[in-house]
Parts: sequence; structure tokens; C-alpha cells
Amino acid sequence: MRTKAIFYHAGCSVCVSAEQQFAAALDPTKFDVEIVNFASAPERIAEAERAGVASVPAFVIDGAPFHINFGASMADVKGGA
Amino acid sequence: MRTKAIFYHAGCSVCVSAEQQFAAALDPTKFDVEIVNFASAPERIAEAERAGVASVPAFVIDGAPFHINFGASMADVKGGA
Repeated sequence: MRTKAIFYHAGCSVCVSAEQQFAAALDPTKFDVEIVNFASAPERIAEAERAGVASVPAFVIDGAPFHINFGASMADVKGGA
Repeated sequence: MRTKAIFYHAGCSVCVSAEQQFAAALDPTKFDVEIVNFASAPERIAEAERAGVASVPAFVIDGAPFHINFGASMADVKGGA
């Protein structure tokens, strides 16, 4: 079974760079990658925070958060920055 | 041709977690992954810093640094922390 990997971002330039390098880089035989943009899916913010996401861009793989560089804090995301 | 992806770390617990999830996760048909542990290869520190690595664990893919969570700063690494 493939592992679920969710890539959360907010459309920022740091996010796009990470998405292009990482979201497309994971081995498709091992991972089922979902990309969530909070700008179009704000209802997913709570779920990301519960998984420990503190900033974007970030992956949640197997329930564990991995922040990649720093684009914006979740406070910024919620503030619409 | 596969893209070179170098994973730099320093043996810390955050590093090991990122290594297990990411270094093994990249699509092997697209990436040639090299893992560098500064504890055993301190001579690679300068090269990582030139690529923009500010903390570990971090990937350098196509020359661009991607910091994953935060294990230790490069100052800590050089100080032997």
C-alpha cells in the first residue's frame, strides 16, 4: 500500500519552488501525493494544524509534519497573508 | 539524466527522521540521492554552506537548498554540537 503524503501550501513563491521539487519528486510507487492549497481549501487548515503543521510549505507523511524551508506561518495563512 | 540530490545531516534525531522519510522517498528514476553525514565528512561542510544550507537536515537539489524541519544550525554543526 502506498503511503499518503499531503503537501500543504499557500501559493507563495517558496511554496511553489518546494512543490515543483518535492511534490513531484516522491516515488509514485511508494507515495500517494495530495496537494492542498489553503487559498482554495481553507477548510483544510484545521486538519493541517492538528498534524503539527506550523508553517508552509509542509508535507505530512504518515501523520508526521515536515516543514520545507519557510514560506509563511499558519498565522499568516489564517490572516490571509 | 537523473538529478543530483544531496541530503546533508548531522546524525541528530530530527535528521534521522527526515532521512528515513525523504531520502528514501525520492523517485529513484529521477534522482541520484547522496547522503552526507557531517559527523563523518566534515570536509563537506564548506560545500553545503556555499549551496545555502543554513541548518540540517537539508537537501540540495539542482543547487537549491531545501531545509526540512530544524535539527541543528550550521554553527552547531561546526561547533560539534
